Amino acid sequence: MLDRFKVPEEDRVYVEESAVRAATEAIFISIGLDEANAKRSTDVLIRNDLWGVETHGVSNMLRSYIASYRSGALNPRPQIVTERETPTTAVLDGGGGLGLHVAPTAMEMAIEKARVTGMGAVSVHNVGHMGGAGYHAAMALDHDMIGLAMSTSGRAIVLPTWGAEPRLGTSPIAWAVPAGEMPPFVFDIGTSQIAQNKMRLAKRVGARIAPGWIARMDGTPVMEEVDFPDEYYLLPFGGTREMGSHKGYGLGSVVDILSSTLSGLGPSFLDPGPGFFLQAMRIDAFLDVTKFKADMDTFLRGLAATRPAPGETRVVYAGLLEAEEEARRRETGIPYHTEVIEWFRTVEHEMGLHFSFT
Amino acid sequence: MLDRFKVPEEDRVYVEESAVRAATEAIFISIGLDEANAKRSTDVLIRNDLWGVETHGVSNMLRSYIASYRSGALNPRPQIVTERETPTTAVLDGGGGLGLHVAPTAMEMAIEKARVTGMGAVSVHNVGHMGGAGYHAAMALDHDMIGLAMSTSGRAIVLPTWGAEPRLGTSPIAWAVPAGEMPPFVFDIGTSQIAQNKMRLAKRVGARIAPGWIARMDGTPVMEEVDFPDEYYLLPFGGTREMGSHKGYGLGSVVDILSSTLSGLGPSFLDPGPGFFLQAMRIDAFLDVTKFKADMDTFLRGLAATRPAPGETRVVYAGLLEAEEEARRRETGIPYHTEVIEWFRTVEHEMGLHFSFT
Repeated sequence: MLDRFKVPEEDRVYVEESAVRAATEAIFISIGLDEANAKRSTDVLIRNDLWGVETHGVSNMLRSYIASYRSGALNPRPQIVTERETPTTAVLDGGGGLGLHVAPTAMEMAIEKARVTGMGAVSVHNVGHMGGAGYHAAMALDHDMIGLAMSTSGRAIVLPTWGAEPRLGTSPIAWAVPAGEMPPFVFDIGTSQIAQNKMRLAKRVGARIAPGWIARMDGTPVMEEVDFPDEYYLLPFGGTREMGSHKGYGLGSVVDILSSTLSGLGPSFLDPGPGFFLQAMRIDAFLDVTKFKADMDTFLRGLAATRPAPGETRVVYAGLLEAEEEARRRETGIPYHTEVIEWFRTVEHEMGLHFSFT
Repeated sequence: MLDRFKVPEEDRVYVEESAVRAATEAIFISIGLDEANAKRSTDVLIRNDLWGVETHGVSNMLRSYIASYRSGALNPRPQIVTERETPTTAVLDGGGGLGLHVAPTAMEMAIEKARVTGMGAVSVHNVGHMGGAGYHAAMALDHDMIGLAMSTSGRAIVLPTWGAEPRLGTSPIAWAVPAGEMPPFVFDIGTSQIAQNKMRLAKRVGARIAPGWIARMDGTPVMEEVDFPDEYYLLPFGGTREMGSHKGYGLGSVVDILSSTLSGLGPSFLDPGPGFFLQAMRIDAFLDVTKFKADMDTFLRGLAATRPAPGETRVVYAGLLEAEEEARRRETGIPYHTEVIEWFRTVEHEMGLHFSFT
């Protein structure tokens, strides 16, 4: 993550993973989730926090999930229904449950189908926020499979290239690929130039907005650095056409088609709620796993060993910094903004729970 | 395509599609391909020319293919061998044949597997250049399937984010999705900021190189507009980290893994030759085709009807301009640079052929 988004050191409180995990599980259970789904939902959030992906951890997301449960927009005990199924595919009605645990249920189906046939893909509608596509793609890793996860969510906020009206969401897409000795390749991006969650985080930490990230309400790309604006649209990644925004726009369209339209929801700009697409592919359906993993190590080591450009200190690959950060945070605890700790304290009081770190 | 890449009007000669098609087929047959493979290879090139994708049409590619056949680097009569196969997957040894016709053979296998099981994916090694991923992905359209095609090729030329040594190729990726009344969604991009073929085209038409497209040989991104340089590396798309080059770098890595490593070649920076990954997915394994296509029309019409930003004239989606260009060029003929016509004349003479337009 860019430095501008990091919690300033003086505002940080370090909390042990197990403590925040226990607190988050207790919150989900208090809200009505069963234990398995509370544990799974918590695992998604804490994993993102361990990876340093604060945008999808407890601080940025948990309070909005709680609000959605309280308003009835999310169902804590959803009935998941399989609407269509083939040996390789399925479409699920998520029963209005939170994507944090419905997406793993769908990904487990995709993995089981891939185990039997070589490939599996499951799409989901009537479901809440997925909470970080990388986690769900990475579920494939332990099965020696390649995982793919994508999602639409929320209202249209991203402009098409040359457009003045939003037509896409920030639509994340993630691939995860196992390696041997090297940390796995886990690549998780939004298809806008900047994620809406990062905008929220930028607002909280007081970060400025870089050129080419957003557009004015008439569609004009903002090409200078600005303070956080009152209103804005997001640009597809690339920013402008000369810098390749048609690539971000097209990739966002792919995610929209596979996640929303293919799951039966139609285009996401009609605001039908989130749709997911989850896919798993068995490596040994193509190649011996040992050879594949050895070749992946060669690939990833080669990337990480690249001589840095002038002014840069090292080259990394998708997933490497996250794996390093996870190891570090398991030691030091997870840094949260003081304001997040205060929020946990409030919830603790409201729900009559007891957290060890507040 | 950006205006800077278009053949200047005064240098254009318009040739009827059927004339250049006949000439190209005759060249492939003269070189030793059988009629079916000559027709298929020609169709890939001409389709790209009809779409206005000059970078992958006859002018930019055909002479390098001929040189490769003459040097023995390509086999005009390859034996394609299936090395591994499951109900959903296969790995092919392409027998050293040109990707223009080997990729369609692999895509046909993927489509047949998808017809039976819902999904199919085929990877290929020991094969020549694919010649435009969009064509191969689009083969799925007539089968009411979603197509995906990607390829590695050639030596490493793209720098990782923050890197000073090239580790990736320009690695194209394409998705194709059918619609009802609207032209299909066909999205085909290179994962570098600019394709190597576009650099070649820029050199021929004398275009300047925009900021953020290339790097100096020490890895420093060139952030001003420059004349065509003697030597350069390409930047992953996004250009710089602040503009999201980690997204282009990661997507290029995905293509490298699926096309090269998964097909058994290891990472493409070891220069093992091209690798392909081709996938087809049956729409009705998820959703009724009629509903899907109607929803796709809503999506694509919505994109194309977006109010343009100030200074822009219209909003399009991936595949729309190409479909319009194809209709126009079927009427007017395909515009080629005079230099390309001269090349055809030379080949005609050398091979003892007769072309109607030279």
